[in-house]
Amino acid sequence: MNDRMLRALRGQPVDATPVWFMRQAGRSLPRYRELRADAGMFEVLRDPEAAAAITALPLEYFPVDALVLYNDISTSFFGAGLHVEIHPGLGPVVDRPIERPEDVAALRRHDPRVTMDYIMDQIRLLAARERVPILGFVSAPFTLCTYLVKGARARNVEETKAFMWRWPDAWDRLAGFWADHLAEFAVAQAEAGAGAVQVFDSWAGALSPADYERFAMPYTRRILERLAHERVPTIHFTTGNPALLPLVARAGGDAVGVDWRVPLDEAWATVGHERAIQGNLDPALFAAGEDAALQGAADVLARAAGRPGHIFNVGHGLTPGADPAVIRSVVDFVHESTAMIGMEGGA
Amino acid sequence: MNDRMLRALRGQPVDATPVWFMRQAGRSLPRYRELRADAGMFEVLRDPEAAAAITALPLEYFPVDALVLYNDISTSFFGAGLHVEIHPGLGPVVDRPIERPEDVAALRRHDPRVTMDYIMDQIRLLAARERVPILGFVSAPFTLCTYLVKGARARNVEETKAFMWRWPDAWDRLAGFWADHLAEFAVAQAEAGAGAVQVFDSWAGALSPADYERFAMPYTRRILERLAHERVPTIHFTTGNPALLPLVARAGGDAVGVDWRVPLDEAWATVGHERAIQGNLDPALFAAGEDAALQGAADVLARAAGRPGHIFNVGHGLTPGADPAVIRSVVDFVHESTAMIGMEGGA
Repeated sequence: MNDRMLRALRGQPVDATPVWFMRQAGRSLPRYRELRADAGMFEVLRDPEAAAAITALPLEYFPVDALVLYNDISTSFFGAGLHVEIHPGLGPVVDRPIERPEDVAALRRHDPRVTMDYIMDQIRLLAARERVPILGFVSAPFTLCTYLVKGARARNVEETKAFMWRWPDAWDRLAGFWADHLAEFAVAQAEAGAGAVQVFDSWAGALSPADYERFAMPYTRRILERLAHERVPTIHFTTGNPALLPLVARAGGDAVGVDWRVPLDEAWATVGHERAIQGNLDPALFAAGEDAALQGAADVLARAAGRPGHIFNVGHGLTPGADPAVIRSVVDFVHESTAMIGMEGGA
Repeated sequence: MNDRMLRALRGQPVDATPVWFMRQAGRSLPRYRELRADAGMFEVLRDPEAAAAITALPLEYFPVDALVLYNDISTSFFGAGLHVEIHPGLGPVVDRPIERPEDVAALRRHDPRVTMDYIMDQIRLLAARERVPILGFVSAPFTLCTYLVKGARARNVEETKAFMWRWPDAWDRLAGFWADHLAEFAVAQAEAGAGAVQVFDSWAGALSPADYERFAMPYTRRILERLAHERVPTIHFTTGNPALLPLVARAGGDAVGVDWRVPLDEAWATVGHERAIQGNLDPALFAAGEDAALQGAADVLARAAGRPGHIFNVGHGLTPGADPAVIRSVVDFVHESTAMIGMEGGA
């Protein structure tokens, strides 16, 4: 069993820096379309064998040290009694968006072990046969709510913010509902065999530090504290605003995931070297050829400086323009150039 | 003549803090549609009287201290021999995008005083009859190029970055071409009567500090230095990455414009108190009702702490959801609560 990532999450020495990529199981892989056939995403997700094949697909292209679940944050909406469609360019669109405080009460409490059993089934299949850890994930409540308040995503970070400022009590009920649900879902993923869980807050960067602290952080913290209590290793990822980093670190997570907007060494100093850090290659480099990508990876490794607790990743998800051959070169480069460190550590 | 903004740009005491809003001349104003009368944006822009009426329209709703030109960054593309269409959700889309290094040579050098005379005509009309300064603007080269490299905007911050990493020499020719053109256009706006010029880099926040310093900053600096040499007052606005702020300040500008992702007092300390600062209300507050908006404005003013050199603005453009009545309340509030400072300063 490859335990590099779990060791790095505990800040322990590793034989090489662990590598995985957000959105590694998806459109950047040529065989992805083939595996999907023409099925819709939700249809594939409800077929654990089909979904597990997509989760494991990156290993055919590059030797990552963790498999992140093929899933979408919007599966949680189905559990709460909402219907969802994926609109290109908008993301998940729910049939009954939250527009007024009274809409919050209509959300249905549910047990994710029952309503989302197909996700836990996928994890059980993978955990039984793969030799790298399976990484579960949940959305942070703020990010989930950007897709729920007023429906579609396009302008609704603005609308989500307007809702929370106008009706802070209703916001607390809404974000609290999701914090409880998402914490339970994250624990269920760990029970099914996920070795760690990433909580990701892709829209937090649209907030000022004061708004993040008031409206987003308490709910993310509730999830991370629950997972810490259950001894589930966690990664807390945000993107879009380096000024939030001190608060993001305070909210919790064994590792803090950062994007490329801030250099990794500065980010790690802000987070504190006693915590693990994940990041932070610009994923656009995978569309720019091997030379540029390797140079970018070398810069990230230089800033990590061989310190235990670094998980190599992109600063946001892989995009359809990423070249799998370039990704493979980067994974090999990270493993090869950090293997030296492991040997020194063992000497 | 209301000279609050020009005094604030020089760091001089004012009778009240000047206020204007990015995108104040546009869709958030009910009469905007009426004035456009179904004409396309480029059609209106080529009619200086019609465009000037839109530029001056905010004064019918709230007493701002500057009128920012109704224009679009893509008018510069026409001058360079490209055709542009505005696609909803994508922004300006050019007919011949830059995809390879050799495409750069096809751009036509041109004199903006000739190819964009209608913009200077609009400024002359406004400067002759309005009692507040007319504020011209140009895009920073990096932001302009995000619309040009690979065409549409949706994913092309990624594609723009891939281009600059892959072909740094071609990027330097491309960004250099636009830096020269945009500097000339900015000077022409000032000659026509613009009291100050804002250089705005809306996509810079997608860059890491190292990439900003290498690929964006030199070209923005070229424009700002040219304007400083011509004694044209400038505002240098970026959004999306507070970690860039030390470099943004180094690139120049009499004032540095910041978004709400960083508190105004922290941003001003980073920029240096000898420079003016512009910002930084979250424009989403204008969709959240008067109470929330006034509370947000009070926080911005508290952080400005009555220091000379503050220009009150939003942290990014007004959106269609902004309520003109709430905007008016905020403008009045800023003027009334800072008038005290002016009186003290004069005592």
